[in-house]
Amino acid sequence: MQRRNFITTAAAGAATAGMAAPAAAQAKFRWNMVMPWPRSTPGVGVNAERFAQRVTAMSGGRIEIKLYGAGELVPPFGVFDAVHTGTAQIAHGTPYYWASKSPALHWFTGVPFGLTATELPAWLYYGDGNKLWQEAYAPFNVTAFYAGSSGVQAGGWFRKEINSVEDLQGLKIRIAGLGADVMRRLGATTVTTPPGEILQNLLSGAIDAAEWIGPWNDRAFGLQTVAKYYYVPAFHEPGPGLEILVNKDEWNKLPADLQEIIKTAASATANETLADFLYHNIESFGPLLSDGIELRAFPEDVVRAMAKESFEVFEEMAAQDPLTRKVHDSFMAFLKKAVVYNERFDTRLQAMRKLALTQG
Amino acid sequence: MQRRNFITTAAAGAATAGMAAPAAAQAKFRWNMVMPWPRSTPGVGVNAERFAQRVTAMSGGRIEIKLYGAGELVPPFGVFDAVHTGTAQIAHGTPYYWASKSPALHWFTGVPFGLTATELPAWLYYGDGNKLWQEAYAPFNVTAFYAGSSGVQAGGWFRKEINSVEDLQGLKIRIAGLGADVMRRLGATTVTTPPGEILQNLLSGAIDAAEWIGPWNDRAFGLQTVAKYYYVPAFHEPGPGLEILVNKDEWNKLPADLQEIIKTAASATANETLADFLYHNIESFGPLLSDGIELRAFPEDVVRAMAKESFEVFEEMAAQDPLTRKVHDSFMAFLKKAVVYNERFDTRLQAMRKLALTQG
Repeated sequence: MQRRNFITTAAAGAATAGMAAPAAAQAKFRWNMVMPWPRSTPGVGVNAERFAQRVTAMSGGRIEIKLYGAGELVPPFGVFDAVHTGTAQIAHGTPYYWASKSPALHWFTGVPFGLTATELPAWLYYGDGNKLWQEAYAPFNVTAFYAGSSGVQAGGWFRKEINSVEDLQGLKIRIAGLGADVMRRLGATTVTTPPGEILQNLLSGAIDAAEWIGPWNDRAFGLQTVAKYYYVPAFHEPGPGLEILVNKDEWNKLPADLQEIIKTAASATANETLADFLYHNIESFGPLLSDGIELRAFPEDVVRAMAKESFEVFEEMAAQDPLTRKVHDSFMAFLKKAVVYNERFDTRLQAMRKLALTQG
Repeated sequence: MQRRNFITTAAAGAATAGMAAPAAAQAKFRWNMVMPWPRSTPGVGVNAERFAQRVTAMSGGRIEIKLYGAGELVPPFGVFDAVHTGTAQIAHGTPYYWASKSPALHWFTGVPFGLTATELPAWLYYGDGNKLWQEAYAPFNVTAFYAGSSGVQAGGWFRKEINSVEDLQGLKIRIAGLGADVMRRLGATTVTTPPGEILQNLLSGAIDAAEWIGPWNDRAFGLQTVAKYYYVPAFHEPGPGLEILVNKDEWNKLPADLQEIIKTAASATANETLADFLYHNIESFGPLLSDGIELRAFPEDVVRAMAKESFEVFEEMAAQDPLTRKVHDSFMAFLKKAVVYNERFDTRLQAMRKLALTQG
């Protein structure tokens, strides 16, 4: 039962507090909201803006949220510190961007071969995920709410084929998160090219390969015009999680009804963000195939090598930090059960659907 | 751009209306909420209750929602008429329960071999789904919001194995929705046993097979104790959608901020309901396997026969009703693209994950 408390306790409290204290409930709040992506970025930026608008709308204007895109108030990677120090009261982001604060944060975005976009919130809300996540953020005076995912990511655009582990030797690749650690262990050189420079760097030959997001966002960047081998899916981001970050002191100043509004808006954003990415990825995949790309999947021995290095990376990180150990163990225990379940349900359903549609 | 309007127009309106009209905004509403399932039903009943609590909490008590379980105010299948006539202002339900009003409603829950629990909201929110759904409900003075899914369902519990289409001849099976039409065309006899009587009817031999939901809910009912062959997944419910129904006149009486609160609460419920079902299905699958059941999948020629009959059922329904034709065509166009995308992304990711975890 404890697993439901994170949702219902606040709800029950709000009903009481909201009605008993109409004066406090009418206080107005003006909040700054920051994020590591430009304001109009499809998927992430657009859903952050919708979040801000609906909090204002639901509160009848009692919270006004002024949204700043990347670099407008603070630099992209300054978002966490901005919320930590209170320069911004709230942010949209993704936990692994702040992994230098705590390695455990990687698991709340997701790790190589990890939980998908539907399994991650299942673990967060109903498993131990959310409790551990708040534990990781507590030292920074920040609280977080899950805010969706871009779904299964693409493995990226490569100028030459990857037929064996040897082909990764000396490869210069733009790749994010723990995937970069794995690629380096396999002999690649990794860079963190800012999104807006990926196309130019592939074109100039400064990098040999780059992963960005998936068909929708990749095609909008024109990556298919400069590297023809498209490896899908990614091994390293099976369903990266997004978040709404809130400064704890500012959170505590809100009456319970406004707290419930923010919490619910984050959950609605989670629902709609995944739908947004999935819809547009599905719609963009056909046109991308028509662009004359060469679709590839990482060969089995490359996947095995990536997996071996991934599990070693996890172990090394968990060995150095007790919280990371706890988070990793909880995540992996659920992942193992999820894989058994998924094979018999989702994966088999897809096979049945394909059979049905092929004959229909 | 039109696709985003359903979310942002109301948001922008609410900010203005809420601030300009504080007196109207402070009006109180007492609503009755009905649903076709008992109040404490895991997954559906519990998430409906959480929806009601959070609407009250977010509105600081300006809407109080009194929730009635199945039969407490109206009979389970009287829920739609209760909202239509205004006996209840709001309801939690699933569109195909009201398919006698309009056959098009089947597609908003989902159809055999159709969209999954993540694809359905993608089509509703960002494709033509939601527009068509509102068109289907407009004659009944009702509006609806997507409220999540129980995910991929199980095919059901069978007392004997299904090795060929012939084995379906004369089978007495409890099965819901269009799946029942398909089963009848394949020679089975279908019944709509109320949930609470499935176990007893399997035990007495009154029925030979029954589908309910999935590992979590099936195991709670004890179905594994009376029929040992568990066929997964279902061919007929790949991710059945749930809904929040609202009487249109009552909806129009709400100020814009309260409308936005209900809309957002429904979206948050969608996010959390799927996570709730997925978490508990994953956690229940292992114990169910340990109960000594025999796990089966429908054989390929049975799946082909089910698919053939399914597409004929769709065609017959679409031929009789112009709206059903429009809905079916839009749904199928998106489904075909989704299957192509899914094969290269989700399904391949699952194979990679399995490879990784098997060696890890």
